[in-house]
Amino acid sequence: MGELPLGVMVALGGGVLGLLFAVYLANVKVLPQDQGNDRMKEISGYIREGAMAFLNREYRNIAIFVLSMVVLLMVGGLGWQTSVAFLLGASCSMVAGFVGMRIATAANARTAAAARTSFNDALGVAFPGGAVMGMTVAGLGLLGLTAILAVFWLQHGLTSAAADIAGFSMGASSVALFARVGGGIYTKAADVGADLVGKVEAGIPEDDPRNPGVIADNVGDNVGDVAGLGADLFESFVGAIISAIVIAVSDLGTDANDAISFALLLAAVGIVASIVGVFFVRMKEGGNPQNALRNGTVASGILYGVGAAGVSFGMFPDFGMNYFLATVGGLVAGMIVGFVAEYFTSGKSVERIADASQTGSATNIIAGFGTGMRSAVLPVVLIALAILLAYTLAGSFGIALAALGMLATTGMTVAVDAYGPIADNAGGIAEMAHLPPDVRRRTDSLDAAGNTTAAIGKGFAIGSAALTALALFTAYKAAVSKAMGIENLAIDVTNVYVLIGLFVGGVVPYIFAADTMNAVGRAAMGVVNEVRRQFKEIPGLLEGKAEAKADYARCVDITTKAALKEMVVPGIMAVIIPLFMGIVFGPETLAGVLAGSLISGVPLALLLANAGGAWDNAKKHVEEGHFGGKGSETHKAAVVGDTVGDPFKDTSGPALNILLKLMAIVSLVFAPLIIKLHDWVGGLF
Amino acid sequence: MGELPLGVMVALGGGVLGLLFAVYLANVKVLPQDQGNDRMKEISGYIREGAMAFLNREYRNIAIFVLSMVVLLMVGGLGWQTSVAFLLGASCSMVAGFVGMRIATAANARTAAAARTSFNDALGVAFPGGAVMGMTVAGLGLLGLTAILAVFWLQHGLTSAAADIAGFSMGASSVALFARVGGGIYTKAADVGADLVGKVEAGIPEDDPRNPGVIADNVGDNVGDVAGLGADLFESFVGAIISAIVIAVSDLGTDANDAISFALLLAAVGIVASIVGVFFVRMKEGGNPQNALRNGTVASGILYGVGAAGVSFGMFPDFGMNYFLATVGGLVAGMIVGFVAEYFTSGKSVERIADASQTGSATNIIAGFGTGMRSAVLPVVLIALAILLAYTLAGSFGIALAALGMLATTGMTVAVDAYGPIADNAGGIAEMAHLPPDVRRRTDSLDAAGNTTAAIGKGFAIGSAALTALALFTAYKAAVSKAMGIENLAIDVTNVYVLIGLFVGGVVPYIFAADTMNAVGRAAMGVVNEVRRQFKEIPGLLEGKAEAKADYARCVDITTKAALKEMVVPGIMAVIIPLFMGIVFGPETLAGVLAGSLISGVPLALLLANAGGAWDNAKKHVEEGHFGGKGSETHKAAVVGDTVGDPFKDTSGPALNILLKLMAIVSLVFAPLIIKLHDWVGGLF
Repeated sequence: MGELPLGVMVALGGGVLGLLFAVYLANVKVLPQDQGNDRMKEISGYIREGAMAFLNREYRNIAIFVLSMVVLLMVGGLGWQTSVAFLLGASCSMVAGFVGMRIATAANARTAAAARTSFNDALGVAFPGGAVMGMTVAGLGLLGLTAILAVFWLQHGLTSAAADIAGFSMGASSVALFARVGGGIYTKAADVGADLVGKVEAGIPEDDPRNPGVIADNVGDNVGDVAGLGADLFESFVGAIISAIVIAVSDLGTDANDAISFALLLAAVGIVASIVGVFFVRMKEGGNPQNALRNGTVASGILYGVGAAGVSFGMFPDFGMNYFLATVGGLVAGMIVGFVAEYFTSGKSVERIADASQTGSATNIIAGFGTGMRSAVLPVVLIALAILLAYTLAGSFGIALAALGMLATTGMTVAVDAYGPIADNAGGIAEMAHLPPDVRRRTDSLDAAGNTTAAIGKGFAIGSAALTALALFTAYKAAVSKAMGIENLAIDVTNVYVLIGLFVGGVVPYIFAADTMNAVGRAAMGVVNEVRRQFKEIPGLLEGKAEAKADYARCVDITTKAALKEMVVPGIMAVIIPLFMGIVFGPETLAGVLAGSLISGVPLALLLANAGGAWDNAKKHVEEGHFGGKGSETHKAAVVGDTVGDPFKDTSGPALNILLKLMAIVSLVFAPLIIKLHDWVGGLF
Repeated sequence: MGELPLGVMVALGGGVLGLLFAVYLANVKVLPQDQGNDRMKEISGYIREGAMAFLNREYRNIAIFVLSMVVLLMVGGLGWQTSVAFLLGASCSMVAGFVGMRIATAANARTAAAARTSFNDALGVAFPGGAVMGMTVAGLGLLGLTAILAVFWLQHGLTSAAADIAGFSMGASSVALFARVGGGIYTKAADVGADLVGKVEAGIPEDDPRNPGVIADNVGDNVGDVAGLGADLFESFVGAIISAIVIAVSDLGTDANDAISFALLLAAVGIVASIVGVFFVRMKEGGNPQNALRNGTVASGILYGVGAAGVSFGMFPDFGMNYFLATVGGLVAGMIVGFVAEYFTSGKSVERIADASQTGSATNIIAGFGTGMRSAVLPVVLIALAILLAYTLAGSFGIALAALGMLATTGMTVAVDAYGPIADNAGGIAEMAHLPPDVRRRTDSLDAAGNTTAAIGKGFAIGSAALTALALFTAYKAAVSKAMGIENLAIDVTNVYVLIGLFVGGVVPYIFAADTMNAVGRAAMGVVNEVRRQFKEIPGLLEGKAEAKADYARCVDITTKAALKEMVVPGIMAVIIPLFMGIVFGPETLAGVLAGSLISGVPLALLLANAGGAWDNAKKHVEEGHFGGKGSETHKAAVVGDTVGDPFKDTSGPALNILLKLMAIVSLVFAPLIIKLHDWVGGLF
């Protein structure tokens, strides 16, 4: 093991530390807590079963996809190491998702039960419930990745190992594809299905146990915001580290060892910073849970900055400042991107949309759409500045450092985000189990904070996906140059092959977003029909008779099947398009496709996510009693915006993150094969 | 004159021919026709006065803008020739807009009067009325541009002349900015204002003379679809020719003369083809006016193809086929882009949106939005293929040839599009003058065809703007290389300065679209307040008493002022952003901004235009009696989509065309100054 640098060992330790902390949180903070009364246990049980049923079926589908990819890797002659890394990456992401979901769905009833005592007690269950997912994602990501890197490094040297471990990132991407896109379709199909028949047609309240779709709806919250987001950020996190490694090997020559060691140390620092940040999340009765969550995020960020400074100046006395600023630039950009998302999905921005709802749905839609478009500007400019800073200070490797800075505190980010559905579910359980209003008030307050953090998390996820995809793109360029035996592949915008790639790449997000948006509609129709059927065929259900039981499982099952079916086409597309464009038009065109998809896709994703969040909160603002309040014409108009925004923010927007990263990682992994096949195609003419 | 090639002379002749044909159409086909009864004359008079009042004030604002730009050009030391070309380009565009509007607003009452006799008579006034605009745009564009080229060529040689005449294109762009963006805000503010108070609040029908906003609404149709589209395509047309000239000079060495001659000949062929095409627009009673219009378009296209083949093979026996295919590729791509727009804004696509309206406004919005996103894909792919073909066959010059092919029959395209508001106005006049139902039925049928052609025209305008902006971008690269004294400026995507330019360029369309969308809302509020005030303060107006006269002029005036005020910020932005990015970050970043704005802006513009068109027609589909027909809940939902779509398709979408071209031409003209100032800025650090 002598030839492995220190960073590898520390990263392995950091990964283990993250996992141990997750075990601690689960077994000390979450699982020992009181689950509440039998009714609460029962409901929580349904949600857990539904969520696990979804995961099980999803993982079976992933298995098929993963095996097909392995075949492709083998046939493509890419070496068994890539396949092993690929399988390990997929497995780590799946295990993280499984553990996170298991604990999140165990935390919901416990949060509701703790909310009978106090705010802080409830937060003290809900947040650690989410933090288990966060720590598992970061810990398992770093541990798995570093382990396989170490093995291959010892086996056949660093250069080959760096190429192999791109497979790990592709495995993570494949799981993220299913979790984020399938999960996104699931969550909104269940939501729309349950609401449309329950709230609108049957006139029963949200989270009413008579509604056969209610469990599927609660499952959906976990599927989307726990498993989906977790897999998304798992992918970004490992993608950032891997591109740092690939770029270090290709660009830094003899300094590569140190640079890789440095990147891994940064990742380990990020895990420690996240762990410490968890202890900053606490509040008093009547306090604002959102401030508590923000304290945790900011504390992690500052700690990461301090740790990164120590590592930078310690390792590189001469130019440590450059590396330090590059990675902190990414961290700061990520935080501001999150706050920009918050700004556009709350306060004045939301009031303006609520105000516009007074003249009807059309003005509500236009106002929300305009807000979404404006919200895309600043994050992109910030990302551009972070890139400029990082590159100026540290070259291509700097871009990977910036991505790493943005993602180092992934443990904390995922924790904050996964907390949302736990609080949301706790509220649902409180409602269904008819707990006292005080409890519901506390869970509602926790939930409201969760909505804001969800908006921030979405903005952050897009920003980090952009930076990760860009780092992977840089790694792709290095891989292509190496495979072609040239020093530096030129990707000139005025080369017509690059240009057509840019244009085509620019519309790929549009296909993907349109497809996923339509998929929600189709999947929701299945749920609608099933809920209607149960109301009609189960005697006494709508009247709430005790002997009439809704068949929740069937709704969960139908939603699961529909969501997984609907994601096949967009999923295959994300793999096929880069391969097709690369093989037929060459690696320059493929580079254009990747860049074009980023340039057009990042603002589109921000538009979709933030417009959706703004509409959601504008509706809530009206429901709080402004402009006529609940039931008014203004409210009806605001509900239209909210409904339009649902697939925008929870399906199509986040799905674009996956598209951008998956296309980049597929291109990176298959670069040698693409070049070989392109030459063969060229020979045909 | 001996050194000027044949093409210059022919182009001058072609321009004059186009203008003569416009004079013929106006004085033989339009003006001598019967204007109908006094009431019709009166209403038509109001519309004409309003339209001309708008133009007058717009032109005064343009004068200020143009003079500021001249100062900038002078201060920048760009030579008086550029300023002269700039002034001439702006003047030609303004004259074309003035003549076109004058005749279009004279043709409306005459069309209504002719509709009393037969379909073909009505079409025989409406279409020539639009064709005057088309022929003036093409004729004056080619004549003015060629004349100034010839003068400067003789004065100080081709190389300098080619640089000078970019000013002509910038003049055209400046006018287009005001006409398209200001006009777009005007037309929708008037529409929304008139409808919201008249139709919704007061409950009186569309085009009711009691509505004080009705004239402003009818004026708006002309302002948007005659003056706005005309100026937009004027700019694309001259932009395509000018980039061909600039690229020929920079890339083709001693062959430049022949290549320029060839490009000018093609433009002249396009004018002749358009003139002949006009005679193919005829129909029988009960026939479909849309087929008549399509016959004209297709005839022009075929004639252009034949003519282009003759010129290509005649001038270049060796590689004429290459040039021919490059330009015809552009022509065909343009036609298919138009048909794709038609496909997504009619038939099955529209039925699906109408169908989705049955479950409410939200599903209507989502369906329309999804349709808009899908509609962006094929046009962009087609444009990419046309670029690939053109470049492969004829290099950078080929890209300009493709743009020219798409735009050569501009005379016909504008004619078809400008026909729409004439038919629309004729319907309004028939309504307000209480003409028999038979007349209204004929004008409605003409109007329906106008709606479809408007959708096609919008798609085409975007496609041609993309290709023109790209050709200008190529010319910009040539100009920068020349100014920097290097052979070929590298614009590599992985150069961080290019990269940040790409990202920033990608969000500029979002700022622009959001700004113009909000501007419509603000301007409409002014109209709403004024219409409300008149209904309240003018006694007997709402009851329709004879002595109560609505003050139409005041509404026109308020809309005009608001529209012109609201366009200042987006307009200045389109000039400032390229200058700022170029001066601060350098010419590579600016190249990135231009490319990024195209990659992200073209699909966004297509989404906005086609979603808007699809919602509009989905509403019409419901109004024809499907899914419950007029007044049903489905109809209400469809109206929401239509209202959202109005600023999408008539303001923000078309405004993006201008943004893309204006940023490119500003960069091209100011390239030497930008480089000088950037060096100076660089020296500060």
